[in-house]
Amino acid sequence: MEHPENDKKYKGLTVNQGVQNLPSVNPYATFRRCKRSLSAEDYFHGIRNGDISILGQAVTLVESNLPSDQVIAQKVIELCLPFAGNSIRVGITGVPGAGKSTFIEALGTELCQAGKHLAVLAIDPSSEKSKGSILGDKTRMNELSTQTNAFIRPSPSAGSLGGVARKTRETIVLCEAAGFDTILIETVGVGQSETAAHSMVDYFLLLQVTGTGDELQGIKRGIMEMADGIAINKCDGNNIERARAARVSFKNALMLFPPSESGWTPEVICCSSIDHSGVQDVWKNIEDYIAFTKKNGYFEHHRTEQSKYWMYETINAALLNGFYQNTDMEKLIEKAEKQVLNNEISSFIAAHNLLDAYNKKK
Amino acid sequence: MEHPENDKKYKGLTVNQGVQNLPSVNPYATFRRCKRSLSAEDYFHGIRNGDISILGQAVTLVESNLPSDQVIAQKVIELCLPFAGNSIRVGITGVPGAGKSTFIEALGTELCQAGKHLAVLAIDPSSEKSKGSILGDKTRMNELSTQTNAFIRPSPSAGSLGGVARKTRETIVLCEAAGFDTILIETVGVGQSETAAHSMVDYFLLLQVTGTGDELQGIKRGIMEMADGIAINKCDGNNIERARAARVSFKNALMLFPPSESGWTPEVICCSSIDHSGVQDVWKNIEDYIAFTKKNGYFEHHRTEQSKYWMYETINAALLNGFYQNTDMEKLIEKAEKQVLNNEISSFIAAHNLLDAYNKKK
Repeated sequence: MEHPENDKKYKGLTVNQGVQNLPSVNPYATFRRCKRSLSAEDYFHGIRNGDISILGQAVTLVESNLPSDQVIAQKVIELCLPFAGNSIRVGITGVPGAGKSTFIEALGTELCQAGKHLAVLAIDPSSEKSKGSILGDKTRMNELSTQTNAFIRPSPSAGSLGGVARKTRETIVLCEAAGFDTILIETVGVGQSETAAHSMVDYFLLLQVTGTGDELQGIKRGIMEMADGIAINKCDGNNIERARAARVSFKNALMLFPPSESGWTPEVICCSSIDHSGVQDVWKNIEDYIAFTKKNGYFEHHRTEQSKYWMYETINAALLNGFYQNTDMEKLIEKAEKQVLNNEISSFIAAHNLLDAYNKKK
Repeated sequence: MEHPENDKKYKGLTVNQGVQNLPSVNPYATFRRCKRSLSAEDYFHGIRNGDISILGQAVTLVESNLPSDQVIAQKVIELCLPFAGNSIRVGITGVPGAGKSTFIEALGTELCQAGKHLAVLAIDPSSEKSKGSILGDKTRMNELSTQTNAFIRPSPSAGSLGGVARKTRETIVLCEAAGFDTILIETVGVGQSETAAHSMVDYFLLLQVTGTGDELQGIKRGIMEMADGIAINKCDGNNIERARAARVSFKNALMLFPPSESGWTPEVICCSSIDHSGVQDVWKNIEDYIAFTKKNGYFEHHRTEQSKYWMYETINAALLNGFYQNTDMEKLIEKAEKQVLNNEISSFIAAHNLLDAYNKKK
């Protein structure tokens, strides 16, 4: 996963994708924050004009942890909100080694060639701590980044999954206001990243892979049931038979789950990111799902639920953090845990002792 | 599900199970709260002596919502805590119609005949609202209730799942202090009951059934992955072939999931509550699991995690309720939801507006 400070990549993207929209300014200078600050309205107009450079800068603002940047960012988002929503949002997850980057590259390239305006984002809560990707995939999306209709952005870093998720959602708003009609969000299968991604997309794709006996078991609990579709990747070369057998296994397993709320029956499709076979079938399945859920009303209902979900997630996180991040409470919590584990007091009494202590401190 | 106020059933249980331990008092009078109040120490000593009648009264105290009862109940629990923990706790879930009651009756009877001291509890958050069970199963555990080593208790009612879960956990403490070595907890598959039950047991059994094509799909998302074992019930008569085929399907599906934290591979076992075939195999599987997890340390680790989990669940519920149950906040929350859904403000800003309003009110 590219780290935001990898200037070379940024410059590559800016020059390839935005140069026709730039004012007559040295393209390398546009990457650095302009000394004259853009106002929220400037960002908004640039975004609405499809200026990728300004979009990139606005996203950087959104990702920034500086309070002054956040003030402008929130204004930009507010201006963009009425123009957001008009895209298909697809989440893509899979175990390390499933070939997510290669798959996104193959799919993304096909989409751009078909005239789509594609934004590729990522949710990786570890990006703050690590210098690069924790995934095995070292190849990044070289071919896709040369597409003029593609905007690729690594994960924001935010100190918590909640922060990363929020910034990603806000970036989606900006991208949609800029005219991107297809948003792909890659998750890295760590912690609850998939749940966060699932809660901000219309369609959740699970990328599976087979090649050795073990790989089928790599998916985390609960992810298979979250998927709106499953793609068995690396269905090529010597692997074709195994991939097809895996497809049958997953199809049978899916039949054991209850019907999804959307009314949709997930499909399992074999594909290869190398020869692109099946990639269009995967996309066709996504389009069919979107048409199906728009027709039966689930699409709108789902987006409504997601918006509410994020409001409540933000509230709940703040309410709990007030307690758990209180430095006085830390030692008391540690002590209470020990008492519970030694069977000295019940979990319930321990909890209420802590809450009483907390309320006295406020 | 029996409602606690169904006196006839209570009297039947008390007379059948506790009469040899009673002081010379009219057995029907023991059901009613004694005019002279028992102290916490009285309850504790009665429980430790295996006095089922006093155990029943103590559980009634625990289930009571009266503050004065709660004070005594918490003291009794504190006295019992050092003597708790020495049992196998098994959760049993399944769709309505899976035959949970009949299965528990069959299993429970076998266990009692093998010399076990069995407590059968239930988690049913709807018991407060409904006069009886929401399940299709009307037969209750008539045969089991005649076993002298069995203590059967319907679900407490508490106004919330959290309350029901807490009272059930506290009842487990009392039962274990009274010498019960096997605790079965039935859940009714509503809301998050299974998650609550799963978080207080050592082994979680999913009871499945087949007879028509649809029943295989009845399980809620996430439950199959929670199960430490699956029993395919009603494997008798005309249903044997279908039950065996279902067993193969579930076994194959389980192979697609990642290894469980315990290191255990869940089994799928066919059984019949009518002719008891397979019931002992199900129990053997549970015993094997317990031995396996005690040996590799997971058993203790899991109980530790559960104790901590309940402490944090209690704290979190209190922190959130302070906000959501505040009557001033209700209207503000409703208004904020509308603004978010109309794309007027972002979920994030809506959340923070509400939090600001809440903090000013405090």
